[in-house]
Amino acid sequence: MPLNNLKILLISALSMCFIGIGHAQERKIAIVLHAGAGYMRPDMYTKDQVQDYTDKLSEARDVGYKILENDGTSEDATVATIKILENSTLFNAGKGCVLSHNKRAEMDASIMNGSDKNAGAVAGVQRVKNPITAAQAVLHNSPHVMLSGSGADDFAEAQELEMVAPSYFVTDERMEQIKKMIQEEKNKTDLFRDAPESLSDNKFGTVGVVAIDKQGNICAATSTGGMMNKKNNRIGDSPVIGAGTYADNRSCGVSCTGHGEYFIRLAVAHEVSALMLHRGWDLEKATNYVVHKELMDIGGAGGLIAIDRKGNISMSFNTPGMFRAARSSSGENSVAIFSE
Amino acid sequence: MPLNNLKILLISALSMCFIGIGHAQERKIAIVLHAGAGYMRPDMYTKDQVQDYTDKLSEARDVGYKILENDGTSEDATVATIKILENSTLFNAGKGCVLSHNKRAEMDASIMNGSDKNAGAVAGVQRVKNPITAAQAVLHNSPHVMLSGSGADDFAEAQELEMVAPSYFVTDERMEQIKKMIQEEKNKTDLFRDAPESLSDNKFGTVGVVAIDKQGNICAATSTGGMMNKKNNRIGDSPVIGAGTYADNRSCGVSCTGHGEYFIRLAVAHEVSALMLHRGWDLEKATNYVVHKELMDIGGAGGLIAIDRKGNISMSFNTPGMFRAARSSSGENSVAIFSE
Repeated sequence: MPLNNLKILLISALSMCFIGIGHAQERKIAIVLHAGAGYMRPDMYTKDQVQDYTDKLSEARDVGYKILENDGTSEDATVATIKILENSTLFNAGKGCVLSHNKRAEMDASIMNGSDKNAGAVAGVQRVKNPITAAQAVLHNSPHVMLSGSGADDFAEAQELEMVAPSYFVTDERMEQIKKMIQEEKNKTDLFRDAPESLSDNKFGTVGVVAIDKQGNICAATSTGGMMNKKNNRIGDSPVIGAGTYADNRSCGVSCTGHGEYFIRLAVAHEVSALMLHRGWDLEKATNYVVHKELMDIGGAGGLIAIDRKGNISMSFNTPGMFRAARSSSGENSVAIFSE
Repeated sequence: MPLNNLKILLISALSMCFIGIGHAQERKIAIVLHAGAGYMRPDMYTKDQVQDYTDKLSEARDVGYKILENDGTSEDATVATIKILENSTLFNAGKGCVLSHNKRAEMDASIMNGSDKNAGAVAGVQRVKNPITAAQAVLHNSPHVMLSGSGADDFAEAQELEMVAPSYFVTDERMEQIKKMIQEEKNKTDLFRDAPESLSDNKFGTVGVVAIDKQGNICAATSTGGMMNKKNNRIGDSPVIGAGTYADNRSCGVSCTGHGEYFIRLAVAHEVSALMLHRGWDLEKATNYVVHKELMDIGGAGGLIAIDRKGNISMSFNTPGMFRAARSSSGENSVAIFSE
């Protein structure tokens, strides 16, 4: 082979290699979801139950991943994934979520795009079938970021989202649960001061998703029924941008789950992003510091999921378990409940 | 004088000097307040009006400062100062606040202590006379951090706070204002998409206070009627811990005012604290960066007040004016409206 031809061959091979690398970098996609962190132990579930959870987590994850694979946006993937979890009665979001002291489903949701840091959130909705779609509509079609109560439902209805009767969300199991808890509470003298009974026995069950698409845009979203037996239109961290949800393409996207009051006080989701941007920490170090040091220091139980701008995934929690699943184009493909 | 005596004299003098310094450090107290940032210009007010604002800002500041001087806590000083501003019809908080699209006063407030990062917030209250006292009651007497709507008012009532009829808050001037704005809006086709008319002509008027007491404890608090003509139970940044209010004894306390949606998206109050803790920046650099760079980059108009753990004061805004006043044991004593 003449030298010139060899050169051309070498240059071609190198070019293809670079194109290959460039292509792979451009196409790196990832999705991670949680469906609540809490005090779940293997002996609390039958084999069939574990299978049900695992199946639903995998299904939701794969629906989102498929959207990313087909050039969809991280926002579309995130919303589609959350809707599956909201529509399932297995988790504390949408249908089958925990009930408030008024025996109602009062749901919170939020979503944030890391590209422009635009965000939408709703708190205490009772009629929109998928609270995450209401949050998404706020993001796109409202001058506000956060709407609450009946006003948020009215907005969702005006946006022509699917509306349902409040009873749609209430399952027999959740009604039994709340009745039992209210009964337990009756002997107490100060309804406001005492924390809900047997908090440590509950899984929290909030759901959340973070995804990064082929354009490198990160989206984070969270949806929940909040804390069982909550009173006085309590708002937890899930609809609070900066606490339960945050996304910034320069750093990461984060969705949290756990004892929301502690997550609000530390602005947990924003803190993870701030540690990366201001200290230069990587995702794993930032998430572990917030979950295992900062939250633990004030007694905050829970966890979070996150994806950084390179598509790295973190799933960090300080409780015995967290429902979670992840998939990425760099080979991540997992679903788990307990710590391993 | 024998050498030994001279030595003793010198040592005594030096000791007194150190004790003096120690004493001065321990006793350094400071308070700063804002009553809204916005597009106010000197030609918008008569001399008498400027005097009214200046008098009320000074009065509120001095009431809080006196509490700090008399060994009171920063929390007591902060709440007492906010109450004066809420009770005045000059500002957009408590009596005389702006009205929502429903022609109601729907008020938000929050408070946070930097010592333990405990916090309390209420959103959309309509009956508690001083929303800041409801936020304070949440901080101390609720297992939750954030309550909303009628549930928050019910909680305030159960806490035996002073309750009033919703009409107490409504002034003739605000009723005229909202009627005019709703009339202006009638020609529009999409109520949800369009931002409120003539936003740029409004001063925002939220009030906030940050104080540091003799124990070095920082407290930050914010109270507001929110955005005029707000719809759908909109929640702004004021009751959102991390966005409108934040306090951490290790860094600073912050209270914000302005176009709340932008403050939520940047988690402004927490971001100032994060820049100090994670980048090691001083208060002035951190507040100016957030207000003049980060907020300006996304078009967020407004300002903030802050005090760091050494008692340094910052009042930063990117609008033509911000109602503000400050006083400290190191000689600060100011009140101002326009940029100077």
